[in-house]
Order: sequence, then C-alpha cells, then structure tokens
Amino acid sequence: MKEFAKEKIVIIGGGAAGAKIAAKAKRECPQNEIELYTEEKFIAYSACGLPYFIEGIVDDIKKLIIRTPEDFLKQGIKVFLEHQAQKIYPERNEVLINSKIVKYDKLAICTGAVPIVLEAIKNRDIFGVYYLRKIQDAIKIKQEIKNAETAVIIGGGFIGLELLEGFVHNGIATTILEYGSKLMGVFDEEFSEDIKEYILNKDGQYVNLFFNDSVVEFFEDKTGKFYKLKTKSGKEIEADFCVIASGVVPNVELAANCGIELGVTGGIVVDDTLKTNIENIWAAGDCTQNKCIITNSPAYFSLGNIANKEGRVAAINMSHCEVKERFSGILGSAITKYFNYTLALVGINEHKAKKMAKKLNIEPIAVTVIKKDKAGYIPNSRNITIKIVADKKTGRLLGAQGVGEGDVARRINTMTSAIQSGLTVEDFLHLDLPYSPTNSSTIDILLIAMYELKKKM
Amino acid sequence: MKEFAKEKIVIIGGGAAGAKIAAKAKRECPQNEIELYTEEKFIAYSACGLPYFIEGIVDDIKKLIIRTPEDFLKQGIKVFLEHQAQKIYPERNEVLINSKIVKYDKLAICTGAVPIVLEAIKNRDIFGVYYLRKIQDAIKIKQEIKNAETAVIIGGGFIGLELLEGFVHNGIATTILEYGSKLMGVFDEEFSEDIKEYILNKDGQYVNLFFNDSVVEFFEDKTGKFYKLKTKSGKEIEADFCVIASGVVPNVELAANCGIELGVTGGIVVDDTLKTNIENIWAAGDCTQNKCIITNSPAYFSLGNIANKEGRVAAINMSHCEVKERFSGILGSAITKYFNYTLALVGINEHKAKKMAKKLNIEPIAVTVIKKDKAGYIPNSRNITIKIVADKKTGRLLGAQGVGEGDVARRINTMTSAIQSGLTVEDFLHLDLPYSPTNSSTIDILLIAMYELKKKM
Repeated sequence: MKEFAKEKIVIIGGGAAGAKIAAKAKRECPQNEIELYTEEKFIAYSACGLPYFIEGIVDDIKKLIIRTPEDFLKQGIKVFLEHQAQKIYPERNEVLINSKIVKYDKLAICTGAVPIVLEAIKNRDIFGVYYLRKIQDAIKIKQEIKNAETAVIIGGGFIGLELLEGFVHNGIATTILEYGSKLMGVFDEEFSEDIKEYILNKDGQYVNLFFNDSVVEFFEDKTGKFYKLKTKSGKEIEADFCVIASGVVPNVELAANCGIELGVTGGIVVDDTLKTNIENIWAAGDCTQNKCIITNSPAYFSLGNIANKEGRVAAINMSHCEVKERFSGILGSAITKYFNYTLALVGINEHKAKKMAKKLNIEPIAVTVIKKDKAGYIPNSRNITIKIVADKKTGRLLGAQGVGEGDVARRINTMTSAIQSGLTVEDFLHLDLPYSPTNSSTIDILLIAMYELKKKM
Repeated sequence: MKEFAKEKIVIIGGGAAGAKIAAKAKRECPQNEIELYTEEKFIAYSACGLPYFIEGIVDDIKKLIIRTPEDFLKQGIKVFLEHQAQKIYPERNEVLINSKIVKYDKLAICTGAVPIVLEAIKNRDIFGVYYLRKIQDAIKIKQEIKNAETAVIIGGGFIGLELLEGFVHNGIATTILEYGSKLMGVFDEEFSEDIKEYILNKDGQYVNLFFNDSVVEFFEDKTGKFYKLKTKSGKEIEADFCVIASGVVPNVELAANCGIELGVTGGIVVDDTLKTNIENIWAAGDCTQNKCIITNSPAYFSLGNIANKEGRVAAINMSHCEVKERFSGILGSAITKYFNYTLALVGINEHKAKKMAKKLNIEPIAVTVIKKDKAGYIPNSRNITIKIVADKKTGRLLGAQGVGEGDVARRINTMTSAIQSGLTVEDFLHLDLPYSPTNSSTIDILLIAMYELKKKM
C-alpha cells in the first residue's frame, strides 16, 4: 500500500498553514520525511497576536511563538529558516530554494499573504512607515510607541482597529485614514456608524478618523524618518510614525510561475481536499482562494484559524493515497474588539445579500435588536446590538452581525453553527438556549430577533 | 371568521408562562378579554433572579418584577392577585375561583411547580426552614442572612449551588446536604467531582458538603425556631436556618381533578401546540411535561425560559382557530455559575446516553477536552473543560457539558444550535467559528473535541 511508503513532503512557508501541515503530516505518517522552508526568521507564531504584543497585553514576543524549529526537529521535521523558494518545477518534482534544488514527492505551498502595496504613494518606503505582518514588524512598531506621542494608521479594518486600541492604550494620539467611507467595511453601514461613535465617545481625545481619503505622499525629516503625510484631498497629517494596514493579497507569485491556477480573488485555486490543479502540489492558508458556504462563490480571507484548518485537511490528504477529509468552506466569520467592545460577524451582511439576491435567488430580510446580554437586573449586564439576515423565501439564515460591550461573541458563535447547518428562522425560533439571569435574558436576544424575523415572513 | 370574534381567555397562574400568555394573547387579538388569576401577591417576576436578590447582587426585589398588575391593566388585561382556582368544569367552560364561578372561552393552566415535600421529615414545617419558590420566600431568607452565621441547604442542584454562592458571598458558613452521591447530578460524574473540588478549593473554609444522606428531623429552639437537624446516618448539623432546595414537581392538582391527562413525569400532557387533552384548555410552563428532542421521550424541566417560550406558543395558538406555531421540544439546556465558575450543559450526558443506547439505537462515544478559552498568551485566558457526547453510528451530536472560569456559556450555546439542527461530528469539524486571540485559541476547544471524536469513529 502506498500509504506506508516513505515519502518526502516539502512545505514552503512557516505560518499557520505550513506549520500545521508539517506537524500533522508527521503525525499521520511518521515514516515520511518532512522539510519546511521559510523566508522568515521565525515560524509557527501567532500573527493575530502581534497587535496585543504591541499594546503590551502580551509582554513577551516569545509567548506568540507556538513552536520553535527545535520543537519541530524533536518531532523529526527539518525546518529551514531564511530560505527563499524561487521556482517550482512540477514536471520534475523539484523546487529551487536558495539557489539549490530540493526534491519532493509532495509539495505544500503556504506562502501566505502580503500587504497590499499602495503603489501611488510617493516616498512609500521611508523609515518610520510600517506594515504589520511579521514578528520583526511588531518589534519595530513596539519600539516606536515607547517614545511616540502621535501615530497614523492607514486603514480602518480589523488590524487598524486592533492597532488603534494598542496605541490609545499607550496614550498615543492616533489618526486613522480610511480610503472607504466607513470603519470596519465588512459590517453593514449602521454598524460602522455605531463602532465609530463608540470609539469617539470613549477615546475622542486620542482618536481622529478621516474617511474617503488616501495618502499620496510621505515626508521624511532631516534624519530620513517619516514625520507627515499628505492626502489626496490635500490634508496634511503629522505623526511620529505610520502603520499601513490596508489589507493583504495572497502571495502567489511562486505558484503562478509554475502554472498553478489562480482564482478570481487572486488566491490559489484548490479543491476541497486542498489540492491545486497540479499533481502532487497542495496549497493552504492565506495564499489560497476559499469558497463561501452561503453564496457558493469564491471568497478570500486571510485568517489564522482558516489557515490552520486548511493545513490540517491538506496534511491528512497529502499523507494518504485516498481523500480522508474535505474542507467545507468558510462562512466569513470574524471577530475582534476595541477594548471591551466586541465586533463580530458571520455569513453575509444585508448589503451583500441584497446585491446578490438575484444570483442567489433569495429575498433578503433583516432585523436588528438591541438588548442586554444578561437579565436586565443583573448589574454587569451590557447592551449588545445584533442584526440577523435571512431569506424570506426559505427562511434560511444568511448572516449575523453584532457589536457591544456585552457578550456578542457567544451570539455570533451560536449563529455560526446555525447558519452552517442550514437552520431556518422557524427552526431557530424555539432553540433551547441555556438560560440563567447571569447569562442571558429569559428570551435571548437571538430568539427575539427570530420572533421579529418571523413577523416579516 | 372566528379569529375576529371576541373571546374570553382565562389564565390560571402568573409566573413566566401565565404572564407571557396574557401579554402575547392580547397583542395577537386585542379584542379578546383576558383575565389572569394567581394565588400569589406578585406576578410576572423573575423567580430565577431570587438567589441573586438574596446574595445582594440585585439590590431591590422590585427589579425582579417585570410587569405589575397596573402594567397589565394598561394593556387591557385584568389581573386578580391572591385568587385561588379551586375547580375546573370543562363541560361548562367554567372555573371556580375564590368560590366564585368564572366563565371562559379558552383556559390556560399555568400553575407552575411546587417544591418536593420531604414527607418523612419530623417537624418539617417549623420556623427557620424555607423553600425558595416565591418572592416572599426570598425576602424571608434575605432577612435571615443579615444576622446568620451558619446555614444548611438541603439539595446540591442548581438552586442549592446558587444559594451557596449567595451565602458564602455574605460570609455564612454553609453546609449542603445532598441525598445523592454528587453535586449537580445532571452532569456526568467527573464534572460533579470537578465542581466539588472547585468549590472546596475556593471556599473550603465556608463550605461543608455531605452526600448520600438526608434529613430525618428538624429541631426547634425555645423560641420555636430551627436550630439543628438530624440526618439519616445520625449526623447532627446545627445552623441558624435551613433552605430546602430538593427540586420541584409540577403543580397539577387542579388539572388532574378535571380529567386533564398527566404524563409519566407527573406533568400535564400537552401537544406541540400546548393544548391539553380537553377542549379549550391549554397549559404551559412548569406544570407541563416536555418532550426531549434528542430522546424523543417525555422530560420534565422547571425553567423560566421554557415557560416563556411555551407561553408564547400557547398564546398564539389560543388566539387563532388554526395552529400558527408549534413548540419543538427541549434539549435539557441549563446553565448556572458559582462566582466566576460557569456550569452549563445541553442534550444528554454520557451516562444517560449509555443507559438509553439500546432504546435510541445509538453507540455513545465521548471526549473531554481541557483548554484555555482564549489564546494561551492572552493574560485573562482561563481553562474550561468541555465534554461532547456523540453517536458513533451516525456521528450525531447528542450532548455537551462544560465547566470552568473561562467562557463556557459560548461553547454550550454554540453546541445547542448544532445539536438542535442535527449536526454530525463531521459537519461540525470545520465549523467556521470566528477567531481572534482575545476570543479563542486558533482552533476552538469545540473543534478540538470534534477532531478527537472523529478519531474515535
């Protein structure tokens, strides 16, 4: 049986997906030889934790490193740091890495994502302007905030908001410059407004928000360091440093150059076994294109948990000659917080549902409920706002968004299993959610939302 | 259409179910005449909040009263306090209440539950021994703890534990005397052990736990007040007062006396429209028998959220001549806490699954995972223990239990929608739960449990 033959698995990239494939593939078939190559100086660290290291909540960068090369070696996995993969030769099962040929039986591409490069900015690469993608980036930004009084963040999405918390927490007056018209663009309009209001009410003295504008030029002082930027609308913003958090794109050059198919989102096309269109080559993590379970359309998300799950599925399937596990796709779930204010969502928002209504043959309806997260008489109960989107025709649940100082995470997680399982409003209506006054109101906000949706159907 | 004829709806009982029926039925058909009769001095209050009033977290009993008779009257609903329903004459559509005949077109029985009376106890009804069921009970117990130094609680279930928190919080040395062999008997054995250990580790200096023993006699001092009890095993426990929290039984005498069918659990049998076997009579709340969605068997739960949901369904169906909504049954969900330690469950535990394996044609498997509720490097992450029970034959999820100082509630709520929707282990395996380090580990504890379950399948 092929399953027990010794194979050599080569992995390009040491982020969440690559590290997972290495560890899991070794566990699946210990006789296999596994080599992991990464350009970086570190592997297997939590990139999602970097904002919290910058903020100071995580006091030591080492805490973000889940496994070291030595840990991998103990498991029999060889890790090569600062090794750049230059070219793949699929027809010969070879990769050129640091100008040397490396043979593989099976190859996993886990090259991750790279920050969107804002080509149009003049003096784009001066000192004092950072991205936040790697450990070194975080170390540099943390160094900056020790002395800085002001900062500017380009981009008002997840990373922008997490950095904002970190900067404000450290007493740094911060400007967010957002190209679009709102913060946290994945939410429906009114949520973005709520989020903006919350931040300005809480920390207005530290926070400036500018929308519908973008950088055209960075300026350096005599030492060659960033000290101000100019926007398209002519605004000039001075700050001690700048972080560009305008999103990422899949890092696919290596894959594209050897004929691996890319999708409409720019990510590598993989099937539900995480295999690419080329024999013996798999891909997982931020470099791949995902499939949205709700719309059944290609989607792109750069998230550590998805990378980890994909890595697991890829590793299992790479380790056996038949398919052992299939990845079911993604729901667009995401969560973050601004201090005690949680922001979370799953599925598609109302705006997107309306836009795709014809294509998906749906008639979107939505309700928004604001309610305490616990019984109103429990002193630490807090308001949360939950919006649910459903299809009027079938009752199918399509998405949920939530914000607030109360327990939003629980509601969005509950909606996640409901949406993924195809529950309808009617199915959810009497969902037997556990109740006690210290945990929810007698009728949880989710059920109230379902009652409201039912009235609309 | 009958829908628009004016009808008189009479409701017996003013707890969660009765109050809900009154309010909802009036909203459904404002032309209907609605009368609610209760033996009590208060209606529409949160009985589940009483332990927190006793503890002092809720500082005013009035905060537990959701609606007053005046509020109901404003909505056009007549409430009669301290009115006891004595007999129902179904053949004449009449109830005898406070020795007067009240006519009805439709009747709702919401007589709730009553504490199990421990018949065998000598001197059972002396002063200083309380139940916790009504507002007056809570006021009396709260009065006691102002001066008491010691207390004894009979029963180590949900109410027993909530009272224990309240007593310990007020510096009262408390003994729990439990008839069975463990605390929180609805959980599997090992969870009961964990709970016991947690309580004794945290508050051992205040807490005494005795198992496999029961009261045989209460003793009164010269003033006629309780001062000690004797147990079956011969133990004598002195305390300033005693609360009996040994569970409740449905209060069904009124219903049974007029020929309404009772089930094996002792509760009133209702169909999924909440109708009894007798024409024009509905029942809802703690006096009814429920159906467990998982076992498809009769079950009995006395819970405010179920009462509320049943009340809503009953009200809707009583207000129209056709069935407009059906109650899908219950999952046995429950949650409580001991200070910061949450205890929650849904579905059936492993013990029950094994006991019912043959009847349900299942082969139960279970896994227990202990893990941080957030990324390990986030300082306020806390351990939680989650156990999932599934059927090896079909992969169907059957139940989940969780305890810990971390966010257990979210996991059990997420499992609730998964279980109710019939999700299998395989379906859940890649569930796209929203991730950020401040909210969960990269792979949530629930997914890790599913990976472990899959290995067992």
